[in-house]
Amino acid sequence: MTTTLPVFDLAAIETAVTPEMILESVRNALIAHAEGRTSVPPPLHMDFPKANGDCHVKAGWITDATDFTVKIATGFRPGLGMPSNHHGLVCVISAHTGRLRAILNDRGMLTAWRTAAAGALVTHAMARSTALTLGLFGTGEQACLQAVWLAKLRPVSQILVHGRNLHNAAALCEELHRSGLPARPASAQQAAGADMIITTTPATAPVLNAADVPEGTHVTGIGTDMPHKNELPPALFHRARLIATDDHAQCLHHGDFGHAVRAGATAQDSDTAAGLLLKTPFDRPDTAITVADLTGVGALDAALAAAVLNRLMP
Amino acid sequence: MTTTLPVFDLAAIETAVTPEMILESVRNALIAHAEGRTSVPPPLHMDFPKANGDCHVKAGWITDATDFTVKIATGFRPGLGMPSNHHGLVCVISAHTGRLRAILNDRGMLTAWRTAAAGALVTHAMARSTALTLGLFGTGEQACLQAVWLAKLRPVSQILVHGRNLHNAAALCEELHRSGLPARPASAQQAAGADMIITTTPATAPVLNAADVPEGTHVTGIGTDMPHKNELPPALFHRARLIATDDHAQCLHHGDFGHAVRAGATAQDSDTAAGLLLKTPFDRPDTAITVADLTGVGALDAALAAAVLNRLMP
Repeated sequence: MTTTLPVFDLAAIETAVTPEMILESVRNALIAHAEGRTSVPPPLHMDFPKANGDCHVKAGWITDATDFTVKIATGFRPGLGMPSNHHGLVCVISAHTGRLRAILNDRGMLTAWRTAAAGALVTHAMARSTALTLGLFGTGEQACLQAVWLAKLRPVSQILVHGRNLHNAAALCEELHRSGLPARPASAQQAAGADMIITTTPATAPVLNAADVPEGTHVTGIGTDMPHKNELPPALFHRARLIATDDHAQCLHHGDFGHAVRAGATAQDSDTAAGLLLKTPFDRPDTAITVADLTGVGALDAALAAAVLNRLMP
Repeated sequence: MTTTLPVFDLAAIETAVTPEMILESVRNALIAHAEGRTSVPPPLHMDFPKANGDCHVKAGWITDATDFTVKIATGFRPGLGMPSNHHGLVCVISAHTGRLRAILNDRGMLTAWRTAAAGALVTHAMARSTALTLGLFGTGEQACLQAVWLAKLRPVSQILVHGRNLHNAAALCEELHRSGLPARPASAQQAAGADMIITTTPATAPVLNAADVPEGTHVTGIGTDMPHKNELPPALFHRARLIATDDHAQCLHHGDFGHAVRAGATAQDSDTAAGLLLKTPFDRPDTAITVADLTGVGALDAALAAAVLNRLMP
């Protein structure tokens, strides 16, 4: 028995992944989760109020997969206006023996990639085929990734970036230009008028007006991951012909879907599992509004980490 | 910023620890926990029924300590009669920045040591000063450690080892002899007649009869860590003059104390925080029966891991 535990840093992980592999892992995991073939226990959470930080531990397993994962993520905000510090790693553990196979010291990038891939896959599946423009709310790393990954799956003719901080919005547009994507800063109303909308903010109140969203639009909410956060207005769910959630209970508990249900804007059973929409083509009238609420599922971490590790330690 | 995460294997950890340091860390952590100066979120749990395994993730923080810990532990039992496989590691994380400082790949030994130290400290504090003999229920690693660590704190004249498997009981006695401790296999009734009793089994029904326990005895239960497990009979709690728990809510939920409360044998508020008994000398009539229910607290992991890491990375 070896006593040393393999630890792979981000540089090693980056050599092992490809966009195709990430998309395939995430797609399969969303489908498995929708079909009840995953095990995802309630996460562990700790707060560090003085340091304005928190720690989340999420575990996940695709039932019958060889490995499961335990992911540790911290977010500490040293002061107002200063950028958050995010750290994280993923432990990959054998589901047959309990032995720790390796640690992926990914500093949170696997989570960033699987979140982007999930958002892109679901947005692409739910948006009408003729949708071309993207309204992007938020100016952080995940806003950039969502646009870049969506553009891997379908043409995006224009990205309208809305951020409370104009400087940050302009900086993100420049970053998107460097990735070959057309982008410009926009008002909330302008961004809400796009064919597809993705919200990636830590907002605690809706970032757009439901009335500004035209018929035929698809909206994916990514940022809401705690009960007190809220990006999408309940009225948008009320107008939606189709609502998808990555995890029904989780979205009800701390997603935008839960806010809409509690506001009486939609029924508690009005959602469809996002994974099912990836598996089977479905009818989507061009004039319908569709909404996806993605809160992040531990099974995605498990699937992606296992795929990465199988490349690093074949 | 360094991209490599320090990982310390068991061999390195063993060079860094001393019994004195473990006892001091555990004592301070039990006191801190009793005084409400710790943060211990509900653990995360996963089951792997086909492989007969489970995974627990426990986090802990002594409020205002520099670091906190997230501990991953797995236990897989490949088959009936075969020994369990236990694996584990402790992640030490800065409570100021959220940065992962290091991983202690201790394969569960830090937990084994802190459990043994806690049992020894509490048993020593609660037993009458003239108590000399020890009744030991269970024949696993923790049974051995409990006896060895108690003998670091006070003379033990004879150890009466009770196990369902006589061969295992004899093997443990030989192991204790090698540590210079007098020990012999015994019936449950004989072991229950000792001055001090420590139970370390995975039993799901009481391992001793309350009527066999003489007045003046102290009993510490270590093994009960799940609601369906039970080592100490409710009638023993009924007879006890003093009941200590390492964590009130936890012992109520999945300790022997909880079984006694639900059986109506003792009141829900009849327990004292074990840490308080370590801090201040207390009155202990020589004829009283005392009982401690220890279910294991994440704050102990945090204290011990931080102490170890401060020696490894001063």
